[in-house]
Amino acid sequence: MAEKVTIADVARHAGVSRQTVSNVLNTPEVVREETRQRVLDAVEELGYRVNQAARQMRTGRSRLIATRIEPDRDGINGSVLDRFLHGLTESAARAGYRVLLYTADDDTAEIATFEDLLGAYEPDAFVLTGTHHGDIRTSWLLGRGMPFVTFGRPWGVPDGAPHAWVDVDGAAGTAAATRHLLDTGHRRIGFLGWPAGSGVGDDRREGWARTLRAAGVDPAGLDRATSDGVDDGETAARDLLESGDPATALVCASDSLALGALHAVRSPGAAVPSEDRAGPPVAVIGFDDTPVAKAVGITSLSQPLAEAATSCVTLLTRLLDGDNRTPGSSGDPHPHVLLQPSLVRRRSG
Amino acid sequence: MAEKVTIADVARHAGVSRQTVSNVLNTPEVVREETRQRVLDAVEELGYRVNQAARQMRTGRSRLIATRIEPDRDGINGSVLDRFLHGLTESAARAGYRVLLYTADDDTAEIATFEDLLGAYEPDAFVLTGTHHGDIRTSWLLGRGMPFVTFGRPWGVPDGAPHAWVDVDGAAGTAAATRHLLDTGHRRIGFLGWPAGSGVGDDRREGWARTLRAAGVDPAGLDRATSDGVDDGETAARDLLESGDPATALVCASDSLALGALHAVRSPGAAVPSEDRAGPPVAVIGFDDTPVAKAVGITSLSQPLAEAATSCVTLLTRLLDGDNRTPGSSGDPHPHVLLQPSLVRRRSG
Repeated sequence: MAEKVTIADVARHAGVSRQTVSNVLNTPEVVREETRQRVLDAVEELGYRVNQAARQMRTGRSRLIATRIEPDRDGINGSVLDRFLHGLTESAARAGYRVLLYTADDDTAEIATFEDLLGAYEPDAFVLTGTHHGDIRTSWLLGRGMPFVTFGRPWGVPDGAPHAWVDVDGAAGTAAATRHLLDTGHRRIGFLGWPAGSGVGDDRREGWARTLRAAGVDPAGLDRATSDGVDDGETAARDLLESGDPATALVCASDSLALGALHAVRSPGAAVPSEDRAGPPVAVIGFDDTPVAKAVGITSLSQPLAEAATSCVTLLTRLLDGDNRTPGSSGDPHPHVLLQPSLVRRRSG
Repeated sequence: MAEKVTIADVARHAGVSRQTVSNVLNTPEVVREETRQRVLDAVEELGYRVNQAARQMRTGRSRLIATRIEPDRDGINGSVLDRFLHGLTESAARAGYRVLLYTADDDTAEIATFEDLLGAYEPDAFVLTGTHHGDIRTSWLLGRGMPFVTFGRPWGVPDGAPHAWVDVDGAAGTAAATRHLLDTGHRRIGFLGWPAGSGVGDDRREGWARTLRAAGVDPAGLDRATSDGVDDGETAARDLLESGDPATALVCASDSLALGALHAVRSPGAAVPSEDRAGPPVAVIGFDDTPVAKAVGITSLSQPLAEAATSCVTLLTRLLDGDNRTPGSSGDPHPHVLLQPSLVRRRSG
């Protein structure tokens, strides 16, 4: 079994000190020609690999992009960020970078992890996910001049986002879903979402509300807010479906909520007829086009996740290789990409 | 905005060469005390971070564990390895390691990626997934004395596996599923799996077959082999359900196949009654307990993925920190952990 060749082996073989070997690899100009040649011959004979550490000391680049892997939630919506991670790993590899993973339970823990990663691994950049109002992670990275891109807009920041970002246009997605339901004859179209204050959730609600208003339907009373999850979705949907003037279709902020809504539609106690093979009588549209939506037959909005990942890497490499790393320099220092989701039609609506 | 402090800044501030700064950080014993103090003062004043590159050159450790992220398949079964990756990232962090991701389409591409990673990042170890008969990746890593653990057994290697591994006992899982179906009165229990030659698939088939035989049921003619996927599962299940003496229950090698089987059971053209709310008349059990199984109500076998990830990290740190890195040394050089899956009962069986 081949043992790993170390710098000490090279030094012994060439009859020089380890420091001299290190000098040859890092600052060859300080080493005499004859010694340098002897060390390089030893490097070749022993098959010593000039390693990442040595290269990184010369180039100042680790070729690492760090990103967080989120804890499993209900297992349905978590698949979105997993698919993004697949795309990110592939796009990064094409650009000559590898992805370094970390976990963190909240913003504060994530910032502590930034410190740790910067000290121990020196990633060249970060890709942040799950942006939200008052996101202290981005200001921390900005304060340190650390290059990063967010998958998700800088919510709640007035014009002139202070960093590069990539996002999917959630409002355009729910608007398309609502238009589709209007086109198929629905008027009382409800919205199942999250409590106000979540950037992503408010955006998705807005697309639904403005489309209803444009069609002359008052959205008031037609939406319910709940925490994300199948059971909460079912409860909130039942509330909408059993009101005085019940909704005949539901646009949902996630596939978890949509699955819950479908349970409400199909449950024996519901005020609506139970399932028939042509699809439920109350139309349900989810968001994220997860494997669960596909398996259950839920119409859903698909995010172009591979394209989002590629866009993140493109913006990052521009930050890392370009001259616009510091705000205020020439070029657009904070480029962004807003992608469009697409409606994938299935039996549910 | 803070600019990154470089080794050149420190050298300028201390009035020494970059090489001297590098010497102070890497081989302080070769630097005069007075100079060393001047450099260290400059390091402190400027807030220069002694970086990973410098530390790695001293310790010979990158604190990186490399693992592959698989391409999305049908999105159902892929979630298993995504969940394993979540666990691996968390377990690795607790042990002081980070996870470095790569992609590869096949064994040959993966080995080329090993070369690239070893040259560019020097991971301390690999965690391989998707082991199979004739796995050339493990022999490649063994040949280079590179520490690694596989999540998956070394299939087809006679006694004395040449490396450390962690796996889940698939045969025990399908045996438990088959026993459960026998206990609820089924006798003609079919098996839906993959063509012979896949280690994982053959193992799962074996647990079903031996349990049937032990109960006095001849498994001959009761199994079908197909490629993994919902549509193929549906076709193969229909074939089993429409044979002369049809199966009344199906144990499946994956949740994708189980979902296909459920479609066959419920389809209008099936030779069996269509769905009623108490569950389908033909029992179906899947494997992997994916979010889809939960959403659709499929009884399935759950793999302890977090525990598998933790076991991988435990075995790796033992390899990296212990003295049994080379086969033949004291201790068990090839420890392994075989975990038990558990049956999660839902409406389908």
